[in-house]
Amino acid sequence: MKITFLWIGKTTESWLQEGIDVYVKRLKHYISLSIEIIPAPKNLPKQDMEKQKEIEGDAILDRIMPSDEVYLLDERGMSYSSEGLTMFLQEKMSASVKRLVLVVGGPFGFSGRVYQRANGQVSFSQLTFSHQMIRLLVCEQVYRAFTILRGEPYHHR
Amino acid sequence: MKITFLWIGKTTESWLQEGIDVYVKRLKHYISLSIEIIPAPKNLPKQDMEKQKEIEGDAILDRIMPSDEVYLLDERGMSYSSEGLTMFLQEKMSASVKRLVLVVGGPFGFSGRVYQRANGQVSFSQLTFSHQMIRLLVCEQVYRAFTILRGEPYHHR
Repeated sequence: MKITFLWIGKTTESWLQEGIDVYVKRLKHYISLSIEIIPAPKNLPKQDMEKQKEIEGDAILDRIMPSDEVYLLDERGMSYSSEGLTMFLQEKMSASVKRLVLVVGGPFGFSGRVYQRANGQVSFSQLTFSHQMIRLLVCEQVYRAFTILRGEPYHHR
Repeated sequence: MKITFLWIGKTTESWLQEGIDVYVKRLKHYISLSIEIIPAPKNLPKQDMEKQKEIEGDAILDRIMPSDEVYLLDERGMSYSSEGLTMFLQEKMSASVKRLVLVVGGPFGFSGRVYQRANGQVSFSQLTFSHQMIRLLVCEQVYRAFTILRGEPYHHR
C-alpha cells in the first residue's frame, strides 16, 4: 500500500514545516509515502467560503484515482485511539488497498462532492486545530501507528 | 485570572519550541501567562515508570498552591470542542479563579496523588500525542479560545 497526504496550500510556518519533515522522513522508512500539495485558490473575494470550498474540492477530486481509498480529516468524522488508527491502517493494508489518500482540507472544510467521493472521515479531535497544524498531527499519528505495528518503543501505553 | 502551563522536562525539538513561542507570545496579549518547567528526573533505572511518575508527581504538587484550580491534560479526561473549551475558560474567569494551572505530564502520565489534587482532567484527543507535542496543542487552543472570546477572526466555524 502507498499512502498519500493530500493538502491545500503551502505550509507557511517554517517551524511547522520542519516538524512535518521530521515525521515524513521517519515514515518513509516504513511505507511508500507521497505528499501532494494543491495550491490554495487565489484572487477570490474574501469571505466567499462556498466558492473556495468548490474550487478546492474540484482540485482534490482531480488528484484522486478510482482505485484510491480516500479519507478526509474532519471534526465530524470517526474518532480513533492511536491503537484504533493503527488497526485501521493494518486493515487497509490487509485489504490490499493500492493507495490510501488522507486529505486535509482548507480552512473552510470540504465541498459536498468531496464528501460524496470519500470512503470515510476521520476526526483527530473535537477541538478545531488550524488546518496547517493538523498536517503535523497526521504525520505524527501515522508514524506512531507504524511504530505500534512494529512493536517499537515510541508509543507508551 | 492568571494561567500557568506546568510541564515536565524541556522541549527538546527546536521546531516545537518555536511553535510554542509563537502562541505564547500571542497569548500574552490576552492574559497573564507563565510557563513552569519541572526538570525531568535523572538517573532513574529505565522502565521504572511508577517511580518516575511519583517523582514527577511530587514536583508537580510542590508547585501548586491551595487556591489554584488544577486541570490535567489526560486522554481519559473530558473532551471539549474549541467553543466548549472557551466556555470553560470563561467560567473560570467569571468564578474569579486566581490561577488556573494546566498540567502536561511526563511520558508515563500522572501519579495517583496528582489525580487526587486536580480539579479535573481535560482530553484533547482520543489519540495519544507525544507529551511534548501536547504542549503546542495546549498553547494553540488556549490562544484560539481567547480569539473566540474576543470575536476575532482566527477561528472559523
